[in-house]
Amino acid sequence: MARTGRRPGRQDTREAILSAARSAFAENGFDGASIRQIAGAAGVDPALVHHYFGTKDQLFVAAMDFPLDPAKILPQVAAGGIDGMGERLVRMFLTIWDGPAGAAGVALVRSAVRSDLAARLLREFLTTQVLRRALDHLDVDPSEVPTRGNLIGSQLIGLAMMRYVIKLEPLASAAPEAVVAAVGPNIQRYLDQPLKLF
Amino acid sequence: MARTGRRPGRQDTREAILSAARSAFAENGFDGASIRQIAGAAGVDPALVHHYFGTKDQLFVAAMDFPLDPAKILPQVAAGGIDGMGERLVRMFLTIWDGPAGAAGVALVRSAVRSDLAARLLREFLTTQVLRRALDHLDVDPSEVPTRGNLIGSQLIGLAMMRYVIKLEPLASAAPEAVVAAVGPNIQRYLDQPLKLF
Repeated sequence: MARTGRRPGRQDTREAILSAARSAFAENGFDGASIRQIAGAAGVDPALVHHYFGTKDQLFVAAMDFPLDPAKILPQVAAGGIDGMGERLVRMFLTIWDGPAGAAGVALVRSAVRSDLAARLLREFLTTQVLRRALDHLDVDPSEVPTRGNLIGSQLIGLAMMRYVIKLEPLASAAPEAVVAAVGPNIQRYLDQPLKLF
Repeated sequence: MARTGRRPGRQDTREAILSAARSAFAENGFDGASIRQIAGAAGVDPALVHHYFGTKDQLFVAAMDFPLDPAKILPQVAAGGIDGMGERLVRMFLTIWDGPAGAAGVALVRSAVRSDLAARLLREFLTTQVLRRALDHLDVDPSEVPTRGNLIGSQLIGLAMMRYVIKLEPLASAAPEAVVAAVGPNIQRYLDQPLKLF
């Protein structure tokens, strides 16, 4: 069991680890970064990093303050197969952004746009935590996953920009199901139609 | 003929007008802002504003440092009718962003994401300069223009985010025509298929 609030400076230690993780993932990429290196930079034992945050993947999710854990979301969206997956993905996306996690999403977009380091971090996150994992759930040629993932991401991040950041009407106030019906089929095309970016 | 570089402080005057224009358009909206009010805030004669910048629309384009003038671009994209317009729009968009104006585009997205005032300004710009103008060129029900414009904008701004800001591969390095083929049909659906956001 994790101790709760009893260890003095625990919050500082957690922050130091998260900060070291962000630097390491941005500078060396997810694969190049190690728990050992991150622990060293934070001045703690690697075992403590595992104790607080679990696996390297889980540490990355925590370091990003990502509004959702792709490891939990992707299986839900994928359940039911490729048919209708576009609409399910948009519905899930809106449920998260319309909810309390939406603020974290806006903050994430803001920081990615503000700094190259944060952009590199988000890029690394999308590649290793979202696209790679999607491989396990999508019945598509693995070589097509980056292309489909990029295009789906472009529509979803643009939807977030318009609805939650720039707040253009009528998109900002549209009922979620109206957005699902409007955008879902476009995501679906990115999922199951022939596409080639390279 | 405009005098060039002879009037002392001309650059300052231009900047003062642009700054006053940005405030006025963000606070009162495009329709609520007037050249007279902007000139007053900048401490110059309204005639000077017209002399430097032309119409209120042209002043807005200058104040946004928008990488293109919608009044010039939209007719080109619309020429040839609705068929293939999705691909033409993506091709035009990439030509601009891949060119020297791309940096201004990235700066615009950055500022809109950074500040609510800049977001309001961009929203007002898209509404009055892009969507309204699109009405003149698109053969669609005027009541549908905001919905279609929002959705098209969501895909294009997301494409810009992925390709030019976050720089996710393979989208960041993909040949323009590959992006046109991948994204164009999705824009086309937003142009000519039944859609309803409200």
